[in-house]
Order: sequence, then structure tokens, then C-alpha cells
Amino acid sequence: MRVGVAGCLGYTGFELVKLLDRHPKITLEILTARVPETVNKDPRFSLLLKEGNGAKIRTLEDADFSACELVFFATPHGVCMEYAKKLFNAGISVIDLSADFRLHDPKIFEKWYGMKHLAPELLDKAVYGLPELNRTNIAGANLVAMPGCYPTSVIMGILPLIEEKCLIKTLLADCKSGVSGAGRSANSSSIYGEVAENFKAYAVHGHRHLPEIKQEVANVINKSKEQTNSDNIEIQFTPHLLPMFRGLYSSIYAELTEDIEQDALTELYKARYANEPFVKILPKGMLPETRFVRESNEIHIYVNKFNESSYLNILVAEDNLTKGAAGQAVQVMNLVFGFAETTGLK
Amino acid sequence: MRVGVAGCLGYTGFELVKLLDRHPKITLEILTARVPETVNKDPRFSLLLKEGNGAKIRTLEDADFSACELVFFATPHGVCMEYAKKLFNAGISVIDLSADFRLHDPKIFEKWYGMKHLAPELLDKAVYGLPELNRTNIAGANLVAMPGCYPTSVIMGILPLIEEKCLIKTLLADCKSGVSGAGRSANSSSIYGEVAENFKAYAVHGHRHLPEIKQEVANVINKSKEQTNSDNIEIQFTPHLLPMFRGLYSSIYAELTEDIEQDALTELYKARYANEPFVKILPKGMLPETRFVRESNEIHIYVNKFNESSYLNILVAEDNLTKGAAGQAVQVMNLVFGFAETTGLK
Amino acid sequence: MRVGVAGCLGYTGFELVKLLDRHPKITLEILTARVPETVNKDPRFSLLLKEGNGAKIRTLEDADFSACELVFFATPHGVCMEYAKKLFNAGISVIDLSADFRLHDPKIFEKWYGMKHLAPELLDKAVYGLPELNRTNIAGANLVAMPGCYPTSVIMGILPLIEEKCLIKTLLADCKSGVSGAGRSANSSSIYGEVAENFKAYAVHGHRHLPEIKQEVANVINKSKEQTNSDNIEIQFTPHLLPMFRGLYSSIYAELTEDIEQDALTELYKARYANEPFVKILPKGMLPETRFVRESNEIHIYVNKFNESSYLNILVAEDNLTKGAAGQAVQVMNLVFGFAETTGLK
Amino acid sequence: MRVGVAGCLGYTGFELVKLLDRHPKITLEILTARVPETVNKDPRFSLLLKEGNGAKIRTLEDADFSACELVFFATPHGVCMEYAKKLFNAGISVIDLSADFRLHDPKIFEKWYGMKHLAPELLDKAVYGLPELNRTNIAGANLVAMPGCYPTSVIMGILPLIEEKCLIKTLLADCKSGVSGAGRSANSSSIYGEVAENFKAYAVHGHRHLPEIKQEVANVINKSKEQTNSDNIEIQFTPHLLPMFRGLYSSIYAELTEDIEQDALTELYKARYANEPFVKILPKGMLPETRFVRESNEIHIYVNKFNESSYLNILVAEDNLTKGAAGQAVQVMNLVFGFAETTGLK
Repeated sequence: MRVGVAGCLGYTGFELVKLLDRHPKITLEILTARVPETVNKDPRFSLLLKEGNGAKIRTLEDADFSACELVFFATPHGVCMEYAKKLFNAGISVIDLSADFRLHDPKIFEKWYGMKHLAPELLDKAVYGLPELNRTNIAGANLVAMPGCYPTSVIMGILPLIEEKCLIKTLLADCKSGVSGAGRSANSSSIYGEVAENFKAYAVHGHRHLPEIKQEVANVINKSKEQTNSDNIEIQFTPHLLPMFRGLYSSIYAELTEDIEQDALTELYKARYANEPFVKILPKGMLPETRFVRESNEIHIYVNKFNESSYLNILVAEDNLTKGAAGQAVQVMNLVFGFAETTGLK
Repeated sequence: MRVGVAGCLGYTGFELVKLLDRHPKITLEILTARVPETVNKDPRFSLLLKEGNGAKIRTLEDADFSACELVFFATPHGVCMEYAKKLFNAGISVIDLSADFRLHDPKIFEKWYGMKHLAPELLDKAVYGLPELNRTNIAGANLVAMPGCYPTSVIMGILPLIEEKCLIKTLLADCKSGVSGAGRSANSSSIYGEVAENFKAYAVHGHRHLPEIKQEVANVINKSKEQTNSDNIEIQFTPHLLPMFRGLYSSIYAELTEDIEQDALTELYKARYANEPFVKILPKGMLPETRFVRESNEIHIYVNKFNESSYLNILVAEDNLTKGAAGQAVQVMNLVFGFAETTGLK
Repeated sequence: MRVGVAGCLGYTGFELVKLLDRHPKITLEILTARVPETVNKDPRFSLLLKEGNGAKIRTLEDADFSACELVFFATPHGVCMEYAKKLFNAGISVIDLSADFRLHDPKIFEKWYGMKHLAPELLDKAVYGLPELNRTNIAGANLVAMPGCYPTSVIMGILPLIEEKCLIKTLLADCKSGVSGAGRSANSSSIYGEVAENFKAYAVHGHRHLPEIKQEVANVINKSKEQTNSDNIEIQFTPHLLPMFRGLYSSIYAELTEDIEQDALTELYKARYANEPFVKILPKGMLPETRFVRESNEIHIYVNKFNESSYLNILVAEDNLTKGAAGQAVQVMNLVFGFAETTGLK
Repeated sequence: MRVGVAGCLGYTGFELVKLLDRHPKITLEILTARVPETVNKDPRFSLLLKEGNGAKIRTLEDADFSACELVFFATPHGVCMEYAKKLFNAGISVIDLSADFRLHDPKIFEKWYGMKHLAPELLDKAVYGLPELNRTNIAGANLVAMPGCYPTSVIMGILPLIEEKCLIKTLLADCKSGVSGAGRSANSSSIYGEVAENFKAYAVHGHRHLPEIKQEVANVINKSKEQTNSDNIEIQFTPHLLPMFRGLYSSIYAELTEDIEQDALTELYKARYANEPFVKILPKGMLPETRFVRESNEIHIYVNKFNESSYLNILVAEDNLTKGAAGQAVQVMNLVFGFAETTGLK
């Protein structure tokens, strides 16, 4: 199968190219970069990739994707929605790693991303690409909106608590990300001297991933077997920047609506994720660490019910560039095209 | 004034010696180390300290503190309580940076620190050395128990919310510390390869600083002008390890018992700390970062009331070795002996 | 083929187990650790390795290697020489990643390693495991001494200059290593606070890898087609510690004995390594960086003849845990047993 | 004394402002920044500096320095030479931390810096601001060109070997710098993900500091009591980038022209620098480390004569932002205006 990657030089795009390059079922047909010549001068490409893989390298404007069955977009927000319709109409599948199709309501998109949506008619055709939540819809989808790195972590962390019926009334997500989440472009706040040996919160008055988390949590609750009112769940999200490159960690505080013991909670999580190839519920005493999922598509979860309390704390570790971005996009591609879900990822 | 420092080679002890070395009012009389000879071979000492400051270096067993008016203990837990009584009886003040005198109830001490308390009769003579809470009691005290690094951050972060009357019913402290908090001894979990490029929670089922936070919060509430029942405040504390050396950050989530707006909360904090030389309440849009307090005795606080919510998030940054340990100990010394509170610290 | 690994919990041993675990031709039969129980508690093992690979875990004393065709030793210096003879006599191959069989002269070994050699009769049976130098001897060898991380880098960096005839008269190797080279044991000089944000030289008056470099350079020169006197080459080696985990970089300064131009030097290197699957001579303007060989068995070399000078500078980057240790050991195993040399390594 | 600082937001400019802010003899009169409004929004300024120090903040174009006796330029190369003449003619001293007045020959400047020199008539009025070399000329100078960070380290490292008479014939400087040397501007090669966990050489075919080192070494040799021909010294310089923020380390390899023993060399260095307040010659076995000079104006040197060799290795550690830039500029200011040389620096 031939695939294209729009935006191959960013951290996410390059990670995706590396994963696709060793995927047994696909061929890289075309890659795009703002200045295609730089790709061959970039030692990451010329040294690390399989020699002679023969992908064409073009600007996005000049790229002809007609030989591809699938195009990934690892471009800045606002780019995919320019190109998606033409590809969609041509029967070429699109997996978008940017935010363009994550939010179903174009007004909410415009509020948070500060730009008009150029393809609002595609919004309800876009499938939210979280396999553990949406596997059936993803199989055969033509347009997949990959989740943000933080929403992946937070939603995976609470899914077992809201799916059957909503067992929580508050969700306070204290999240920490490595700096690769900010991308590879020149930015004075991402230079080494501003990141190393420092820790800070940011965007505390509203991060773009908050409406995405709220939308998906509401969707899950609305579909849950025992109806509750999703308005009752308070969701807050505070992101922080870690002095490291890759890795994302969420410490989620939730207040239970009913009394459930630690063991029952752990069992609930284990049962929910029993067949998930990339999810591990860690046993008592083994806490998640970002290094254990580094460059892996796994997500590690630990459930800690506080003693004699109605609160619990859920710890979730993922690699923001893998399960939080490129790895999950490959997982989704496997589902869309009917390959074994872990192909190229284990 | 002549002072001694027991335990001068750990990160805290060394920081303390550096601060005392440039303090205009005191002379370093005696320093202790397990192997005194190593001090002169340690380039941190021989290269960084004022030459010829002439402090004697001894083992703790061999140290004669009789010429000192004050002895700091920057020793492992369990050491100070062996020596405190003799010094106390000799009229020599003790400022203990370890945990030996933090918890008033010897049973709670023994439960959390796994050792019998050797000087329980001194426990009610020990003053808790948080100047912003306890300034009057500290002045002239003979035995001061310096707060832990996490309790300093968490208590400072919520003090304005509980002092007049208790305005909160939950306190969920998500805290992150640089690795210097683990000390300078050889420990395979502190080596570079286990810390760098990693983030993790630890001690989630109970950290020794939790009973300390609970004790002090209860004390404040019991003394507040409008009585409430401290049992009603739920306090949870989850520590995490940052891949950096120094700096401590707390993101504290609290549920209000009554409706207070953002501006009123900020004013409450500003008013409470208006005369505190080391506390800054940051203005809207300027969030705390650990680098802004690096090697400083300042503590920076930001109050973020979530929109249309009863929850607020308080962000607190301190340097764990300075305001969280050695700097605060110097601040306390200044108060005990009537020096200007900021002497040697600005 | 069944293999054993003695010492599976160090950085090198663990790297080796990871590589062997995904090697298509071998089965891990037995692993040893000082306290076997810790292996299952170590999340690196229980989380990262292929589940159910079924290797037995024993202490080295209790390990029965009789079902193995090959045993790797990733143990501290002095251990392998205790066990090698018995395995050798039983016809089980040994690949030793420690220093026990690197130096042919037991007196030199004893001088530099401070211990008596327990198996001197095996020293001349041991093959020095640098494939690019010694491929023929390695094939079918029963006992292979894997090179040190620094010698691998330095010897690879100058091999083309000394093999045909000796073209240099000085060799000043300024080498820098990530801290994983110091191993995973608790050591107060390896803790994060002593390594991060610091750079230093160490062992400048003599590092154990210096006699190894001298021995191998002399061997090469003695075998060169045009004889010269190896005594004339001055070899100096200054190691430094980098504030990072893995990666080793050598900047080698050499004085030429005859005038050779930049292009001719580059061609000499390209020709020498043309068929080497793991060696890349970088083109003009693309300098080696440790990240380009991170977790790779490749070694990258750049030759820089200074303008109008008889000196040249050779830059060499390798991953100290891969090409400098575990990866090269797998490469050697492939040669010993006749597998394709890159099996399990690309 | 009133001073101005042009370019206060870069790493060097900010370091300079911090040092000047606590200097007892001077008042900050005016600071310049490209966008003056950002200074007050930059927490480094508004949080870290002495409140109410009252310096005016202007663009360089709008700055009126007429009330100043001295202006520092911590601006990009090419800026100071635009402004220096007017200030010089107005009798206002200039200390330039950029490269504009380092090279005496405008053609060499234009070759290496790619721009025409705008004030060539001032070049022979500019004093090279290395106090340990040029103290007499600096006192009372009107225009001082501060040395580059690498030249400071290399020249200090070999001065004792070339001043009386030239004792060496080669000088191979293998230098490593923290990333703060690249400045604070947005640059995709300085972002965290490109710097952390990586080591590389750069500019190996010619770095701008090479002609500066050559110029100053030739000057010293030409003035030496026993004449030798400086053309005979071969000088090569290879810079590398360290994965850390501040600190610079040089490992200098030099070949002696005559036989001198280790002890005599150490004595030569100790004698030469005996009265220098910022230079330490470390004793046998205590090697320089960048952390020992972090945020200090000291420079630490270790001389290692290789055994039975004509080569020696000199290790030099400095803080590139302090002794390599801002601290040395304050040291120079103290000399120019007759303050005690260490004022504000110890």
C-alpha cells in the first residue's frame, strides 16, 4: 500500500516516517516538506532512514498524492482542512495528526484555534482516532482525526470510570509533557536554556485540548448504558512543561459518585483493557514512569484510590510522540486497512 | 555569633554552609562530616568557600559545640534527636533541618519514620520553623524544627484560605521535586541514567510529609478566628520526581466552601503576604517557574480559580534547597537572633 | 541457538538482553543476576521484554549453562576469568564484555586492573572482538574479548591510517563519554546532581583503556605490509564525562608522517570501510553527532585535515552501549556462529 | 557612576545586568532592548532584579547615553561599531562584548564576520580586554574589546608557556561549550530536542575565534623577552557543543620545544598567576570541572605533562557567561575606572 506523509520534518512527522519506513505492509510514496532540498541535507533523514526507500520529496503544493491510498498530515493546524476535501473526494484516505477535525462544532474550533474552518462539511465524517474507544468506527474510515497527546492520556485514564455508567463527578487532570510536544520549529521559549532545569505550568486559563477532552467525555457518557447527566462532571485540565524531550504523564484526580474499593477499581480497569495490546494496568507498587513507554506505543496506567476518601488518583504514562501521536496514527492505519493492529509497532 | 553545622557535605548542608559563609553576622565555628578529611579533598569546599574561613571540621562524635550559640543539623533523620537534649540543656540553640522534631506526636513520628523517638520530652518545646506562619514563636526559640520541602510549599500555598476561616473542603496537592531532594548519597535510583529524561510519581500510598501537612493545617484551622471542623478538609498529596536538580513545584487543587471570585482570591493572597519579604503573588498571566526562584529564598504563588467552578488551582514554586531547606533555616536563624529577616538572603 | 547472559541488570547486560530478545536466531536460555528475584520486580524487565520469553534467572553461582552454546559475560572485571575455563573446556563459547581477556600480557592486566589474572593460559586463545579489524579470527572463535568502548572508537578512527603502512607519528585522543559508561551501580559520583550541567576530564594520568589501545595499534602496525617501528607512534588518551546518558565521541588529533590531502584521506577511509555494514564516513559538511548513532550499532567518522598543516582531526561518534558494548557483542556472535553479520542489529 | 547596557535581554546582556545591579559602585542608567515593553513582561527582569532600580529602558535607536560614563554593548556583531564613534567622541567609555573590535585588521574582520567594518579608525584604539594579559592597557581605556569565550579560555591556558619565551610549537585546542554560547534567540538548532542528550563538533573548518586566538598569541610572542618566530606555532581549534547551559572547557594539547618536567610546569603556571584573583591552578589530582566555576568569574587550570612525552595537556574550565563574557566585562570596568578588581564579583 502506498502512503504519503505531509510534513515529514517536524518531530511528529519524522517519527511517523520512521515507523512507516519499517512497516512491512506499506511503501512511502511521497513526503512533503516546506523546503524539500533540506530533507536530504538533514542527517536525521539521510543517516537514519533505510537507504533507497525512494520516496519522492515535494512541497505540499507540488505533491501529487494520486498514487497513494492514504495520506497522513503531520502539518500545523489549518493545513489539512485545505487539502482534505480533494483527497476525500478522490477516495484517498486521510489520517490527520493536527487538530483540524478533532472538534465537531466548527464554532468551538474557531474559538480555540483562532481560524475559520475551511471544510466544516467534513467534520461529521471525521472519526476520532482513539482505537481503544472507537475501534469499530475507525475500521474503514476515510477521514480520521487523531486525538491530541493530552486527550489520549486523559481519556484513556478515565474511560473505565465513565463507560458503563458515570462513576465520577469531578475530573482534575494535572498533566506534564516533554518539550517535543511543542514541535521542532525555532521558538525562543523552546531553546535549551529556557527548558532545561525548569518546570512550569502553562495555558492554565484554557488549553486547546480542554474542549476536546470535554467533547469526548460527553460522547462517552451520552452513549453509556446507564444514563447520567454529563453536565455534572466537572473537567479541569492544567498542563505543565517537563525539562525532557519525550514523554507525557497525567495525574488525574477524580471524585467518585459511589463507594468503590481499590481492588474493584483495579479490576474494572483490567477488565476494560484486557484485550488491548497497548494498554497495561500496572500492579500494586509498580508506578508508571515515562521511560518505560519511551519510543513505545504502550500506555501504562495505575489506579490509586486514596484511603478513606471518595477521591482517586489515576497515573497515566505515554510517549507523546508515539501513543500520543505517530504511533497511534500507525495503529489507526492498521485498523483502517485491516492489518493486524500491532503491525510495525511491537 | 558562632555557629556549627552538623552534616556539611550533603546538598542541604553544603547549601547552608555557602549561605552562612557569606552571612555578615555569623562565623562558622565548626562543621561536621562523617569523614572530616574528605571535606578538604572535596573541591566544592576547597574551591568554592571563602578561603581561610577557618571552621574546624570534625566528626559529629568528636565535635565540641560549646563555643557555639547555635548548631544547625543537616543530618539524616534520627541524628539530631540524639544530640539535641545536651545542646538544649547547655543553652545552645538548635535548628534541625531533619524531620526529628516536626511531628509533635511521637507515635506518628515512629509510624512514619520507622524509629523510636529518643527525645520525646523536647517535642513540645520545638517550634515549627515556617516564618510566614510562626514568626512570633520562632523569635527567641531554642529548638526549631524546620519544615519539609513539600510542606513548606503546600502550606504556603493554602495559608490564606484557612487562616481567618477555613474556605476549602479538599486539598489535593500534586507536587513535583528536583532530585536534589533525595540527597547526595550513593543511591542507584538517583544515578543520572535513572533520573534524566524520565518523570514518575512515587510514594503515592503515603509520603512522610503528609502527616506533617495534616498536622500544620489542623493547627492553623484550630486557631482560626471562625471555628470550623478540620476533619472536614480532605488532604491528599502525590509527590513526583522531576528530571532536574533543584526546584519544587506544587499544583494544589482545592474545592471552595463558598463562592469567591478570582480577583477576591488574588487580593486575599496579596493582603496576607503583603509584608512577607520572600513571597510573591504573581500577576495574571505570569505563572511561576522554578527557574525564577532558583538559588533564591523566594516563593512564587499564582492563584487560578477555574471558570464557573468551585475549584481553584494554586501554583507554587520554590527552590527545595533554599526556601525548602537551607535558605529558610537562615531566615529562621535571623528571626531567632533578632537579625533583619533577609540578612544574607537577598 | 541457546544462549546465556551473565549479568543482565547492568546497563550493558540489559541492552544485550534487549537485542538478543529480538534476535531471530537465538533463544535466551538463562540470565544471571546477583539477586534473581529483583529481575521480575525490575520494570525494565517485566515491562519491556517480550512476555513469556521464558529465560531462567539464576545467580551466577547457581547457573547451569550446559544447555547453552554461548554465554555472554556482562559482569564486572574479574568475574569472567573465574568461569571461562570450565565453559571453554565444555565447548561452550564465551563472549566477554568485561576487560578480563582484552590484554594479552597478564602483567599489564594486573597492573591496570589491580587483580591477579586467574586464567592466564586462556589469554592467547582469546580473540579481540573488533569485527572490522579481526573478522576472520572471530569466525568460529571460542573465546572473544570484546573491546572497550573507548578503544572501539579510537581504533576504528585511525585504522585506515596505520594498516597499510603507518602514516602517523602522534595520536592524541580527546574522548568524551555519556555516563552510562560508568554502569548502573549506586555511586555518589554518578548521581544526577553530580553529572547534569557539568563537564570534566577524568583519569588523565592513565585510564585502563590506554594499554588496550596501545596493544592493538602495535598489533596492527606489526602486521602492516610496510614495516615501521610502532615505538615511534606517541599515543595519548584523555577521557571526559558528558552530562548525558549514552553516546561516545572521540576527537583524535594525529600528525601525519607524509603529506596527504583531505580528499585522499577521505578516499582512504571510504575505501577501507566500503564493505562495512556499520561504518559510515560522513561527507564534507556533515559532522558526526552522538544522536545520529543513538541505539544504533553504527559508527560515524569524519576526517578533517587542517589547512596547510601536518595534523588532522578525526571525529568519531558511537553509542557506547551499542557499538561500544552490547551491539558489537551481537555482531561478534553473528560472526562466530555464521549468521549474517547484521542480524538483529538493523 | 552611571552606566548603560545595550542589549539587555540576551543571555550575556542579562547576566551583565544582574552583575551590575549588585555592584556597589554603579547605577544602571539605561538599558536597551529591541522591544522595550517586553523587558517588564519578562519575568527574568521583573522578578529577579532589584525592585525600583529605576533604569530607563529604550530601543538602542532611542537611547540617550549622555548621562552615562560607560556603555556596555552586549549586542549582535555589527551593532557596536555603528555607535562606538559617537560615544568615543563624547568621552563616554565603551566596553564591547561583541566581536566588533577584537580583530585589529579590518580585512580579517570582514573575512570572518561577513560584513564591512564601519569604524576601522577605532580599531587601533581598542584595547583587548583580557585583564590577566593586558591589565595596564585596560586601566583608563576608552574602548575595550572583550575577548571571545573560547579565546579567553585558550589564551589563559597557554599564556605561561609563551610569555617569557615560546616553549611550544603546536597548540591543538579541543574546546567544548554549553549552549548558552549560542545566545537566546529562536534558532531551531538550539531547541531542547536538538541539544539535550547529544554531543557534536561544529565549525571544524574554521571558527571566528581562531583568528582572534592567533592574533593574540602572535602579539604575546612578539613581545616576549626571548624572541622566537611565531609562525612556527601551529594553532588549531575544534569547538564542540555540550548538552548543558553554561560552562566552557578546553583540553589543550601542546608540544614542547624543550624538556620541562611536570613540577616545573606547574610551578611556572602558579608563579605566573600567583597574584591573579580569578585564576586557580589546581593541585595534582583535582581536575577542573565546569560546575566548580559556575556563575563565578574564576578560571581553573590543570597542567598535565604526559609521561615520557614532549606533549602536555592543559585543562581549563570557565563559565562562558561569566569569565567568558559578562563577569570579565565587569572585571574590566573595575580596572578602567580604578575600582578594586574584584568588586561585585566575589
